[in-house]
Amino acid sequence: MTGTLTVVGLGPGGSAHRTRAAEDAIRRAQVVLGYRAYLSACADLTGPDQRLLPSDIGAEQQRAEDAVRTAADGADVALVSSGDAGIYGMASLALTAAAALPAAQRPLVRVIPGITAAVAAAALLGAPLARDFACLTLSDVLAPWEAVEVRLRAVAAADLVLALYNPRSRDRSWQLSRARDVLVEYRTGDTPVGLVTNAGRHSERVELATLATLDPARVGMHTVVIIGGGGTSRLGDWLVTARSLGAQA
Amino acid sequence: MTGTLTVVGLGPGGSAHRTRAAEDAIRRAQVVLGYRAYLSACADLTGPDQRLLPSDIGAEQQRAEDAVRTAADGADVALVSSGDAGIYGMASLALTAAAALPAAQRPLVRVIPGITAAVAAAALLGAPLARDFACLTLSDVLAPWEAVEVRLRAVAAADLVLALYNPRSRDRSWQLSRARDVLVEYRTGDTPVGLVTNAGRHSERVELATLATLDPARVGMHTVVIIGGGGTSRLGDWLVTARSLGAQA
Repeated sequence: MTGTLTVVGLGPGGSAHRTRAAEDAIRRAQVVLGYRAYLSACADLTGPDQRLLPSDIGAEQQRAEDAVRTAADGADVALVSSGDAGIYGMASLALTAAAALPAAQRPLVRVIPGITAAVAAAALLGAPLARDFACLTLSDVLAPWEAVEVRLRAVAAADLVLALYNPRSRDRSWQLSRARDVLVEYRTGDTPVGLVTNAGRHSERVELATLATLDPARVGMHTVVIIGGGGTSRLGDWLVTARSLGAQA
Repeated sequence: MTGTLTVVGLGPGGSAHRTRAAEDAIRRAQVVLGYRAYLSACADLTGPDQRLLPSDIGAEQQRAEDAVRTAADGADVALVSSGDAGIYGMASLALTAAAALPAAQRPLVRVIPGITAAVAAAALLGAPLARDFACLTLSDVLAPWEAVEVRLRAVAAADLVLALYNPRSRDRSWQLSRARDVLVEYRTGDTPVGLVTNAGRHSERVELATLATLDPARVGMHTVVIIGGGGTSRLGDWLVTARSLGAQA
């Protein structure tokens, strides 16, 4: 008999932004899989009766397949992601791997939502996502940069607030500068920008800038960059987007 | 001395998708304000020592001002929203009202993130938001429809997955049909669509359709509509978007 696979989003940082459903799913699992740091982040929920299978960073495809296979073999498995597992997370890979199995071997899969990085960052900045926004990744690991830039231009032209995931890493140093150069073709230099690094962790850092003053050196792997759109303004230390749009504002 | 205002997102439905931070904020408040149904949704967190100020639906501006004034007068106030308070929620109104006060009267404001409807719906559908997406509201209460349609066209053309908030209500019956007519100019009729109604409640309903078969009559005030984009496919009963994009898929 096959087991079950629950793909769980832990939210940002520590336990404060985890949901009860996420905690219950981890407590109930027989096997818990995930990137090493995410297993540490939920160590308070696991115990000696559970099998923990930490993995190294990257190798996401392999991790998804391992989780599906372990569940197919009969175990109740939790596969943990930070943030939300469905947004740039493990759920897509796990569901695709499960769907590739013959029906009789396929485990029951459930996805438990989590607080995704853009939502966590927005709350720390104020309310920049209050009306219409897009989430884009600047990672060109799984896409040609040209395809990323096409989307960036479309969103920039549409005046949407923009949350950028994976803006910069050691191996991807120029993409954020390039994205800023694209955005200033469509938006003024004083467009407000918020940078949130390590949301929910002790090292959490919230910074305000503008498109003109945005310094890519302040941005790292654990930063979400939020670029204001129509109706976004800076109110003291807050970044707030109006709920109304256009003529009726 | 001024008090504090914590704007709290309860997530969808009942207690399963609430975060610890949200629960703590409500338990600690002296005064809890919100739409009547949201106060009921967190009745397990409030007690006889707290003052509850339920309000009727709508009147959001008034509710935000009441919350800010109560906090300015010295109370520790929680203002509750469903989903995430920052995304089509109360945070923008509350922060704007607070910023309008003279600095000496301004309460300390915090925003506690929640699971927003699009993220909850996506988890029930599989992983449709796995790479790049936009959230748009179809409500033209606070915007002229023309401005809504401009954004819809831009996102449709950019091939982004799209989560539609407020797709239909008793007083807004034609907007979703019109949106579908716009989307079929850019995407094929077999584009996968997911409808999630009353996520997290007993009456939760998850339905799959395509742009061609989408029936607006199945959609109500508590439905989120997710429209697939590039890389979204139907895998059995799941809606899954690939993590990769373009040529490298």
